[in-house]
Amino acid sequence: MNGDFVVTPWEVSGEVDYDKLVVRFGTSYITPDLISKIPGGKENLFLRRRLFYSHRDLDWLLGLNGKGHPFYLYTGRGPSSGTHLGHMIPWIFTRQLQEAFGVKLYFQMTDDEKFLFKDKLSLEDTASATADNMLDFIALGFNPAMTRIIVDTRDINHLYRTALKVAKKITFSTARAVFGFSNSTNIGSIFFTSVQSVPAFIESDLEGRNVPCLIPCGIDQDPHFRVTRDVAPMLGYFKPALIHGKMLPGLSGGKMSSTGNAAIYTTDDDKTVKKKVMNAFTGGRATVEEQRRLGANPDICPVYHHFEFMFEPDDGKLKKIETDCRSGALLCGDCKQNLLSKVIKFMSEHRIKREKAKETVGNYAFNPDKVI
Amino acid sequence: MNGDFVVTPWEVSGEVDYDKLVVRFGTSYITPDLISKIPGGKENLFLRRRLFYSHRDLDWLLGLNGKGHPFYLYTGRGPSSGTHLGHMIPWIFTRQLQEAFGVKLYFQMTDDEKFLFKDKLSLEDTASATADNMLDFIALGFNPAMTRIIVDTRDINHLYRTALKVAKKITFSTARAVFGFSNSTNIGSIFFTSVQSVPAFIESDLEGRNVPCLIPCGIDQDPHFRVTRDVAPMLGYFKPALIHGKMLPGLSGGKMSSTGNAAIYTTDDDKTVKKKVMNAFTGGRATVEEQRRLGANPDICPVYHHFEFMFEPDDGKLKKIETDCRSGALLCGDCKQNLLSKVIKFMSEHRIKREKAKETVGNYAFNPDKVI
Repeated sequence: MNGDFVVTPWEVSGEVDYDKLVVRFGTSYITPDLISKIPGGKENLFLRRRLFYSHRDLDWLLGLNGKGHPFYLYTGRGPSSGTHLGHMIPWIFTRQLQEAFGVKLYFQMTDDEKFLFKDKLSLEDTASATADNMLDFIALGFNPAMTRIIVDTRDINHLYRTALKVAKKITFSTARAVFGFSNSTNIGSIFFTSVQSVPAFIESDLEGRNVPCLIPCGIDQDPHFRVTRDVAPMLGYFKPALIHGKMLPGLSGGKMSSTGNAAIYTTDDDKTVKKKVMNAFTGGRATVEEQRRLGANPDICPVYHHFEFMFEPDDGKLKKIETDCRSGALLCGDCKQNLLSKVIKFMSEHRIKREKAKETVGNYAFNPDKVI
Repeated sequence: MNGDFVVTPWEVSGEVDYDKLVVRFGTSYITPDLISKIPGGKENLFLRRRLFYSHRDLDWLLGLNGKGHPFYLYTGRGPSSGTHLGHMIPWIFTRQLQEAFGVKLYFQMTDDEKFLFKDKLSLEDTASATADNMLDFIALGFNPAMTRIIVDTRDINHLYRTALKVAKKITFSTARAVFGFSNSTNIGSIFFTSVQSVPAFIESDLEGRNVPCLIPCGIDQDPHFRVTRDVAPMLGYFKPALIHGKMLPGLSGGKMSSTGNAAIYTTDDDKTVKKKVMNAFTGGRATVEEQRRLGANPDICPVYHHFEFMFEPDDGKLKKIETDCRSGALLCGDCKQNLLSKVIKFMSEHRIKREKAKETVGNYAFNPDKVI
């Protein structure tokens, strides 16, 4: 596909050109120099493979941090369904950043957003997805002493005043231009970005002084935070810094959609996982003979990208998968079997951690009286 | 003045023709038959003088009530400044309705609205006005066992979920058409009407069954509740019924503005009250001689209307003021002195009740766990 592509917080379509996005959004590449300022940055899978590759003001934030000025992390999830592997990529990277810097993290569940933007979703649906998604988040091993989960509809009393201040600074024109709203957009959706801005300022509000904030997120979320960054100085806050990730492609060859067989959900059983992996779209050829002769294409292959993002941390082994794929030495069936065994292993471990998370979920609840 | 007039929740300008408003807004007049269904209705000052004169679905609500189906009351205040006499008119009428029917009342302080719509107002300003206005409300003698005050920024956790449901049903087109929004309107203002809708449904939410709601308010607030009424059936609620009042004219001859000498504030001292009353605009003539000869015009006189709305409950005495005014027997100076002594008396009593209200304000706080 050589056509155009669309990336907004609510739509990712076409074949995304991540280099073009840097130009289109006006962000900056993460340079080797910047990576060297992140403890363990050179060894970090997502940074060394350029899966988190773009930023805003990361240089400023790391500069301040180098002078002993601590920052905090903020990321989140729009709970519209179960959690799939693609959702967990930025969470895993965020946990790594939290460990590298030893800093606080606010994780926002934007259940209000999902209710407002998805016609058929009820508040009961989003509540159920919130409870579900939280377990996957906690299962990844976040330090409960340094991590707080904000659920918008549950914690709105701690968000609303700052959301009002943000909302007062954003006109309908601005919201329409950034998010592509129309006259038929509902008035809750128009307001919502104000609520998503709040965690970028919440630590400053709680501490009573400006605290820098770093937001790791999929680059599709950048439009929200462009608005947040424009408003910040008007309200006397620092602009939040951003670090942008690429999105794990879906197994069926397009976006990792929230429905169908494109994504592996954390609640899928092994049989379902097997079906999804073994039926995945690949960069392979029509016949074995052809593939042996001409080789396949890992660049467009979601199976390859699953190794790259999550399931083959060893760069040498990943390189071998790529080389053998291109040369025709590795056939798709074998490659899928290899991925499947790694996914099954991950899933069996995750299921246990996810079950344990039910006992500790209360420890992560946002409570401004207990400053972490 | 014969020109056009504007009545919206945020603007009242020109000389309001209340009969034209009934046509323009598509409301109904309160008939003698309806008044007779309100306990003490025929004797009620505001009803018998047609100061509360228009309604939506009051017949339906009183019909249900007659069959033993109780309703509740909802009114409110946008706390942007101190309380003036004009603010208290619908509150006094609401208290009378509460007493007549022995029903619950929710009083909403829309501090979020005032912050969003008034450029120069901070959340500290609206918090201060809220604390101030509450005392005047309580001083009017509402039954604390049956009355709860909702402060939007304080109680948003009890409002937000229903506000989201309302917001999801209102498009930008609708909000723009009803409220006259433009592209430069801030996104908080666009969302706000959703929050003002919630108390019309809150008793149904708390009770888990549909409870009819009656909203006494100035007719300028009707646009908000037109939207609320349109949305109600989509969410499975009854449409709230409305009972609309006229607005007490300002002492300087136009709208009872929130600034200047047009309004008597509950915190004004006697000297200030005297200055405002004695300097009031009237329907009088240029000279005493002329007035004795030609008479004056009570219809356009705010001093006369202050008697009519609040300070002369005796219809015979009010009629005499009117007749003597028209005939030229009553001069404006004497009439103002008469009003002044009544206002001073009211203010001295109100000051004491207002001071006492500081002790009981906590009894009115909204708390869904203690259902009233």
